Amino acid sequence: MSTAAPSTAAPSTAYERLKTRFARIATLGEAQAMLHWDAAAMMPPGGAESRGEQLATLAGLSHELLVAPVMAEELAAATAEGEWDAANLELMRHAHARATALPGALVEATARANAACETVWREARAASDFARVQPYLAEVVRLQRENAAALSAATGLAPYDALMEGYQRGIGAADVAPIFAAYETFLAEALPRAEEIQARRPAPIALRGPFPVPAQKALCHEMAGRVGLDFAHARLDESLHPFCGGIPTDVRITTRYTEESLAQALLGVLHETGHALYERGLPAHHARQPVGEAAGMAAHESQSLIIEMQAARSDAFLGFLGGRLAEGFGGETAAYAPENLARLWRRVERGFIRVDADELTYPAHVILRFRLEQALIGGELAVADLPGAWNEGFSRLLGMGPPDDARGCLQDIHWHDGAFGYFPSYTLGAMAAAQLMRAARAAVPGLDEALAKGDFAPLTGWLREKVHGQGSRLGFQDLLRAATGKPLDPSDFMAHLNDRYLTD
Amino acid sequence: MSTAAPSTAAPSTAYERLKTRFARIATLGEAQAMLHWDAAAMMPPGGAESRGEQLATLAGLSHELLVAPVMAEELAAATAEGEWDAANLELMRHAHARATALPGALVEATARANAACETVWREARAASDFARVQPYLAEVVRLQRENAAALSAATGLAPYDALMEGYQRGIGAADVAPIFAAYETFLAEALPRAEEIQARRPAPIALRGPFPVPAQKALCHEMAGRVGLDFAHARLDESLHPFCGGIPTDVRITTRYTEESLAQALLGVLHETGHALYERGLPAHHARQPVGEAAGMAAHESQSLIIEMQAARSDAFLGFLGGRLAEGFGGETAAYAPENLARLWRRVERGFIRVDADELTYPAHVILRFRLEQALIGGELAVADLPGAWNEGFSRLLGMGPPDDARGCLQDIHWHDGAFGYFPSYTLGAMAAAQLMRAARAAVPGLDEALAKGDFAPLTGWLREKVHGQGSRLGFQDLLRAATGKPLDPSDFMAHLNDRYLTD
Repeated sequence: MSTAAPSTAAPSTAYERLKTRFARIATLGEAQAMLHWDAAAMMPPGGAESRGEQLATLAGLSHELLVAPVMAEELAAATAEGEWDAANLELMRHAHARATALPGALVEATARANAACETVWREARAASDFARVQPYLAEVVRLQRENAAALSAATGLAPYDALMEGYQRGIGAADVAPIFAAYETFLAEALPRAEEIQARRPAPIALRGPFPVPAQKALCHEMAGRVGLDFAHARLDESLHPFCGGIPTDVRITTRYTEESLAQALLGVLHETGHALYERGLPAHHARQPVGEAAGMAAHESQSLIIEMQAARSDAFLGFLGGRLAEGFGGETAAYAPENLARLWRRVERGFIRVDADELTYPAHVILRFRLEQALIGGELAVADLPGAWNEGFSRLLGMGPPDDARGCLQDIHWHDGAFGYFPSYTLGAMAAAQLMRAARAAVPGLDEALAKGDFAPLTGWLREKVHGQGSRLGFQDLLRAATGKPLDPSDFMAHLNDRYLTD
Repeated sequence: MSTAAPSTAAPSTAYERLKTRFARIATLGEAQAMLHWDAAAMMPPGGAESRGEQLATLAGLSHELLVAPVMAEELAAATAEGEWDAANLELMRHAHARATALPGALVEATARANAACETVWREARAASDFARVQPYLAEVVRLQRENAAALSAATGLAPYDALMEGYQRGIGAADVAPIFAAYETFLAEALPRAEEIQARRPAPIALRGPFPVPAQKALCHEMAGRVGLDFAHARLDESLHPFCGGIPTDVRITTRYTEESLAQALLGVLHETGHALYERGLPAHHARQPVGEAAGMAAHESQSLIIEMQAARSDAFLGFLGGRLAEGFGGETAAYAPENLARLWRRVERGFIRVDADELTYPAHVILRFRLEQALIGGELAVADLPGAWNEGFSRLLGMGPPDDARGCLQDIHWHDGAFGYFPSYTLGAMAAAQLMRAARAAVPGLDEALAKGDFAPLTGWLREKVHGQGSRLGFQDLLRAATGKPLDPSDFMAHLNDRYLTD
């Protein structure tokens, strides 16, 4: 094992010294990532309290290293040449500015309030009892408003934008609001039409289980491998909530298996594999530097969705997959026909739960949350009034009211864990995925022909060059501009939806 | 998740502040323990390099926190009342003195040399080619001598004793040498006699596999549970080299399964469960304090061996186990008779490999290493002369010479990873296990009757009170004195061997 920093020759410039400092912070972040994964995938319940201490201690040390006075001195003195180094230094300053904007006591109070609220939320959701979590959520919102104000003062951004920036740098409410408004208009017409077209088509034939879990596991490993995951640098395990964790050289994805359903684990693994490929493809020679990280949560979601929604649910790949599933699980042949898989896995259905939503209605779930969280942070909406506002907004968007708060404002962990400004990333990612897929199809000949053979390499090769390998050199809009010739343009997503759901 | 240190009310005394500082260092140690476990049990090979950085960074930060100037000031100022707190403060001073004795450059050079040597050793052992590792091992020894000198200067101990102290505080070569000399004399007579007695008994009937791995796993989980491991705070997984890792609230043991052998995994799990119970039973209200840790490596080994060697291989438990194995795996009934299991699993056999040795000859392997490592650290033995000295010493102890260095001085990782002064712990632990078992049998009525029903509770309850719950309040000798009425007394071990191997 080698030690973190060379001791013989001290780095000679302020920028080189900063790189060493940031690498150390990033290495602590790696340790945290592995411990988070373990907590979700491996840890026995009795380890939870100690794990909380470990993660808090590592987070505290990282914060101390980031806000240390010497860091400000070095950042003031440093200069960097070349595009990557210049971007890296800017990202260092950005991280430092955000970290120093928040007083330690506020950071700590926020962590405590989030943890307390999350715990109570689990009970409240199970009991569909908003009143139980309301005072905790009110405290979380109060502290998020303080955080937003402090970050706003330091960055010059509006308070809610300052929170958004923590998830996707360079994107604010003003970028998102008109896109979401246009989508709402589009959906009002598109949804009934999609439902009508779907109703005229033959009903899908259900895949008949049981699907033995060992066979599903083998299939999921095989498919993740086909998409491009190298298991010398990755694991696939199980957890209650599927996720992609770990670090670029050792990425850990999880899923959940049930004997009754094949789609849940399989499509989930394809989604997480998209995230994993992004991490694996980050520029290795900028590892542990801010510029070597992924370009934000919307960019990340674009990579999971381009695999899961764009490529894996394409006619081309469903043709390949159907054959493979029929081989592996047998049963009725007609059920595995690509047209039937398309009817099953590209089905539009209004529902109350975001994570179960199809790609046409999913943005409505996000739009609702985006508006409500802006109002909560802006102070126009009181936490006590959240259930009513939720139900009203949901009805306006999807034409039906949730029967209870468990299927309404209690369904997501995000707010109850202090994450405000995150939700837009899901839909920005879906839109970027469509835009990138369209550009990839134009740039890479034979992309769909390859997918029809179960070969993702033409697509992922292009993504590696245009997205993964770019790290955080470019912001979200510039990344899209360099890859597709234009900033985020929702019309590619709408064209994709039009092809898939609105064409007879 | 709560943060590590309370921020509102600062601890009011130097000792209280030290407790907070040491808890933080211990929490970093917990993170390292989990990452070590993951590296052995879960990590894909591609994660190794990053993991090395993570562990080195955490070790570096821990060291910085321990040697920080403020630590010396607080230690100088602190006072503690009560037995536990006084012991804790002394252990803090001890840890600080050892850490500050070693210059950072030496710590780093040692870590690098150990890592380099360990890597080359794996190839050298596979090829049975000592020459390949010799220069690397020479560098490791050179640096260990420097470490020993620095620790000696700071502690007043002799250099080799200063290394030993890192594994078992309070035990030096002068404590061990006469015990080992006496054992050598004992063995010269006992070994041929045991072999002769054994030869007169019926030959053991081999257990006939294959033993399906899933059934072995279920059995190992059941047996670990019977011994007292609570899987709400523990996991049992697989790794190449079985070990006990993790932390007291989340202990992680591993084993290795092969279809051909039942004993390897099962007895290994019983051994690691002994270690695990020690960790689980450490005093929770001194968690993350030096006094709350296990009392050293010899004490730790006593707890694995009292379960594996003393209790699990007792006539009483073998009777229970035989029935359980016959149920689980079927086959020839006579093979599972307790007398036959005893013949199989209490068999004396001269061999070249320490880890495969029976409990009678095992100390000979340790005695050889103890003498050689003293000579290496003392400078009386050059690394180039190690294979010859090994083979000569081995022949003198066990009457046969290793056919090659892979079965000689290349077999163990310890020296090649910089661990000098560790080996005596194995035999001190075996002796302590016998002494504790004798005391437990005297103190706890019905201990063997319980084992005969597969019930370890009477034994482990006594161990929890007398050993586990004592943490590091007492040194090795005082711990034994309090538990058994006398310091380490090898005659209990010899009496045990006499009963088991030397009585017709």
